[in-house]
Amino acid sequence: MTDFLDQLRALIGPTQVLTGPAAEGYCHDWTGKYHWTPLAVARPADTAEVAAVMRAAHDAGVAVVPVSGHTGLAGGTHAEGQLMLSLERLTRIREIRPGSRVCIAEAGVILAQIHAAVAEHGLIFPVSFGAQGSARVGGFLSTNAGGSNVVRYGNTRAQVLGIEAVLADGRVLDLMGALHKDNTGYDLKDLIIGAEGTLAVITAAVLKLQPAPVAHATAMVALPDLRSALGLLNLLQTESGGLVEAFEFMPDRYWNRMARFRPDMTCPFATVPPVTVLVELAATAPEAAIPLPDGTLPLTGRLEDALAQAMARGEVLDAVIAASGQQRRQMWQRRESAAEITLNVVPIVDCDVSLPLDRMQDFLDAMGARLAQIDAGADLLYIAHLGDGNYHYTVYPTDAALADPIRAAIAQEAVRLGGSFSAEHGIGLSKRAEMQALKDPVALQVMAAIKAALDPKGLLNPGKTIA
Amino acid sequence: MTDFLDQLRALIGPTQVLTGPAAEGYCHDWTGKYHWTPLAVARPADTAEVAAVMRAAHDAGVAVVPVSGHTGLAGGTHAEGQLMLSLERLTRIREIRPGSRVCIAEAGVILAQIHAAVAEHGLIFPVSFGAQGSARVGGFLSTNAGGSNVVRYGNTRAQVLGIEAVLADGRVLDLMGALHKDNTGYDLKDLIIGAEGTLAVITAAVLKLQPAPVAHATAMVALPDLRSALGLLNLLQTESGGLVEAFEFMPDRYWNRMARFRPDMTCPFATVPPVTVLVELAATAPEAAIPLPDGTLPLTGRLEDALAQAMARGEVLDAVIAASGQQRRQMWQRRESAAEITLNVVPIVDCDVSLPLDRMQDFLDAMGARLAQIDAGADLLYIAHLGDGNYHYTVYPTDAALADPIRAAIAQEAVRLGGSFSAEHGIGLSKRAEMQALKDPVALQVMAAIKAALDPKGLLNPGKTIA
Repeated sequence: MTDFLDQLRALIGPTQVLTGPAAEGYCHDWTGKYHWTPLAVARPADTAEVAAVMRAAHDAGVAVVPVSGHTGLAGGTHAEGQLMLSLERLTRIREIRPGSRVCIAEAGVILAQIHAAVAEHGLIFPVSFGAQGSARVGGFLSTNAGGSNVVRYGNTRAQVLGIEAVLADGRVLDLMGALHKDNTGYDLKDLIIGAEGTLAVITAAVLKLQPAPVAHATAMVALPDLRSALGLLNLLQTESGGLVEAFEFMPDRYWNRMARFRPDMTCPFATVPPVTVLVELAATAPEAAIPLPDGTLPLTGRLEDALAQAMARGEVLDAVIAASGQQRRQMWQRRESAAEITLNVVPIVDCDVSLPLDRMQDFLDAMGARLAQIDAGADLLYIAHLGDGNYHYTVYPTDAALADPIRAAIAQEAVRLGGSFSAEHGIGLSKRAEMQALKDPVALQVMAAIKAALDPKGLLNPGKTIA
Repeated sequence: MTDFLDQLRALIGPTQVLTGPAAEGYCHDWTGKYHWTPLAVARPADTAEVAAVMRAAHDAGVAVVPVSGHTGLAGGTHAEGQLMLSLERLTRIREIRPGSRVCIAEAGVILAQIHAAVAEHGLIFPVSFGAQGSARVGGFLSTNAGGSNVVRYGNTRAQVLGIEAVLADGRVLDLMGALHKDNTGYDLKDLIIGAEGTLAVITAAVLKLQPAPVAHATAMVALPDLRSALGLLNLLQTESGGLVEAFEFMPDRYWNRMARFRPDMTCPFATVPPVTVLVELAATAPEAAIPLPDGTLPLTGRLEDALAQAMARGEVLDAVIAASGQQRRQMWQRRESAAEITLNVVPIVDCDVSLPLDRMQDFLDAMGARLAQIDAGADLLYIAHLGDGNYHYTVYPTDAALADPIRAAIAQEAVRLGGSFSAEHGIGLSKRAEMQALKDPVALQVMAAIKAALDPKGLLNPGKTIA
């Protein structure tokens, strides 16, 4: 192995191969749930160096775990005794082409940097989630990240037109087309996006941009129950003609936990309601930015009208509409603190499930009953990207030994109701058991065949996703 | 082989295995360009029978070519001496769930039947193209069909949430989730969609539905040139907040050809302009359906305003706005007759290329020069789904021997300008040469590895796409 590391040093420079204490920052991820000691951390500077590292590892039979922003939630970068390949130095935004609305960015670019860079052109890249200040292109593509704007724009796959990726043996795959239609063979782009670094190492991507909204209307809404929240979502989608950009569900438990861990961030209502929803509409037509005679924007008026309709029917209890950009930011901070206030204790079972929209209440009911059987004293918190049918469902068991049965029950109930046991966080290490137990067996066989075809030595992020 | 056909007859019924004259309707496709004599045509009734046929063919080592609506344009169902597997009897719409906005349809359902069935629920399935009265689910998924609404909704892949497919050896792959977020492993759905039946036989799909627009504004617009058309597209997208549902480009040559082959369908302008665009806006917000004091709809007013702006700048010469549903249909019929009036003579070179939007004029210029060199007397016709950068570029050579060099030149120029040599029609048989010459070689290697992994005997639609 000393020889191998010397070889890497010759390829990418002696200071870019970290071992021992220098590699300490790479020995765990954001969750703190997994710890490991890698063989070393290689930090190549560009695609050619990534390819050189991969060729060397392939020749030496060394397993490689790609990593970029360390913000994954499924243990996808666990690398005990393996070579970590960090993309953090591939930080170039190669090109922004406003005319064809694309941004070509390397794998180490931080999501928030992309947001800032394209904003200068009046454009947005509508992938947005709590960790956007740290998450990097390689990671959020490899996990097909979701987030808060999927209800309008789709997940990461839908926002990427092309990728460049290095295969297990170092070959470079060039799928960097900036085209909206391209039917030249199999969809390799979408196969590699979301494969958690098990099929190839993504080194760059062509990101699809959208016109920046000229007006937002954002509100915190108090509701009596989940059913009313789903009704409000449908009402807003209809009345606005599909302008709902986010619809984030928080139950009363959320504010209780917020009061405990972030007392500076309070519930916007004097009495904590059973359900709070953060809703945002966004419009791009210039007329949406022209104030009405009373000084408000038309989009805000439309939101007020819809909320008044729902309030008259008893389906909305109260609402606060953001009157400034600052108020809008404050509302979002309350939602974006979710990971911080949710994932900060052990033992914990943090699940990320999706369901058909008409099964969301059924899932809560079924899981409530299951949880009472398994661990009657367990505490519970769930929030939802409601428009996508996506719960982040977190249980705090009274005994760490109950974590696995609780995790299994959550996955089983989601699948039984036509849902998924991993909506957006991926499989990584943490959901391998569910994957083997609940995924269609033929799908698992096909995935294994593809993995063997693209990485016959099994060196790319082994043990993740399908192992 | 007699034994094999007897075996099929036992599996799916003696009347469902066609040979000789009974199979005549299956011996060519819509283009008339390819003719073949299949071993036989098997017409299974459901997924279980498809699986049984595939198992039998796998055991016997017989190649299988799936077919549904016979409307492909790339020879993807050519089946000389091979077993054709027709999906035409899998005609059930298994379920329409308005609450979760999905339609679950089998591979033999005709696209227009889906349109009609979901319309009853106030919903649309926004995949739409000329052959929608004959094309079936299995075929338009296997070719990842594009069409006229891609500018708003994306191509077929973006409209499908799940699929059911039978593998080469008869195993049934169940990916029928109706979820908007599902990160459980590799994206097999999108790998099989667009694979032209070379990886699996699609037997059913979960189709994503959208709310039906409550108002349309449709116009034929006369413009001086392509640059003006691109400017109008941007203007309309901005002014309408992204409500452009179609933007179809037709040059003067289009109307000349129409006058020759469909004299009943005339150009809407007294003098044929250099460029005609069929533009359609569509809105789902209820207010869009409330007439203004002058009796017109707000969306129509918005379209008129934008056209007036462009006309004042000399970028629009004239325009006709549809004043009724019937007028709207007539406008669309003029566009949907394109295949009929374009592909009706030989020799012909019919290409389907895409380009970055800012390279569309460059392509016309470059190809004009190339064509003058290769065949100065050739006639030429091109139309475009302009919002997708997608030309259907057709050349009528003076000599059939020049067809191949012309076809190669078109593909080369598209790729040289950052485009694709197959935007929406796929590869099939007709673009294999371009595929081998112009596709990224590593991508070809990866596709071949996946093909070998999923179909090691090479029995599924052999010789298509990547062969």
